[in-house]
Amino acid sequence: MTHQPIDIAEKFSAFSDYWSPRVISRLNDYEIKLVKVRGEFVWHSHEDTDEMFLVVHGELIIQMRDGEVTVGPGQVFVVPRGVEHCPIAGSEVHAVLIEPAGVINTGDAGGALTATYDDSLA
Amino acid sequence: MTHQPIDIAEKFSAFSDYWSPRVISRLNDYEIKLVKVRGEFVWHSHEDTDEMFLVVHGELIIQMRDGEVTVGPGQVFVVPRGVEHCPIAGSEVHAVLIEPAGVINTGDAGGALTATYDDSLA
Repeated sequence: MTHQPIDIAEKFSAFSDYWSPRVISRLNDYEIKLVKVRGEFVWHSHEDTDEMFLVVHGELIIQMRDGEVTVGPGQVFVVPRGVEHCPIAGSEVHAVLIEPAGVINTGDAGGALTATYDDSLA
Repeated sequence: MTHQPIDIAEKFSAFSDYWSPRVISRLNDYEIKLVKVRGEFVWHSHEDTDEMFLVVHGELIIQMRDGEVTVGPGQVFVVPRGVEHCPIAGSEVHAVLIEPAGVINTGDAGGALTATYDDSLA
């Protein structure tokens, strides 16, 4: 059997739209996703799960009600479950997300930025 | 509240021993770990869980019974549950592991390379 690694940069080169995570692999009942973001998202929370952001390009600011954190390349931040947050990026950011399968990007907020499930790169 | 990102390179600079994963954060009931490896590990499997490797430095070869995969910087490979594998690295490799809390590095094999749980960098 031929085994292949997943090349993160190659997967990022396969799409260009913002705020629309692509599933690249599963890990048990979790999914590994890539997302490109730019501009400001929407305030939301995920009541049932933490959410991991690993930035590989650019600087992602994660606003929370009690402060914010800037996450740069090679840095990780885990937003705890239930914590309202709103990502914002002045220029394009590439990030790896890991969270349970089925998590909706806009959490409890819904709205126009809610992404369609896309595992075409998995 | 002051929020801080986790800087992966900074955490790697805090230890030097091989095959001894350091927990740097939790994600629900999963753990995010860093590991430095060099040389050959031991053949083992994890019956109850997949195991995610994200290489950030060096080239990690993951031997499996039906073939092997070389995972380089910026590449991910998920070893499926139950699949026997044996990591090997000709020179030093730095990798991020994500797996459920409590997973033992040597899986069903045990032995001298079994690491002590270490979350002192979390």
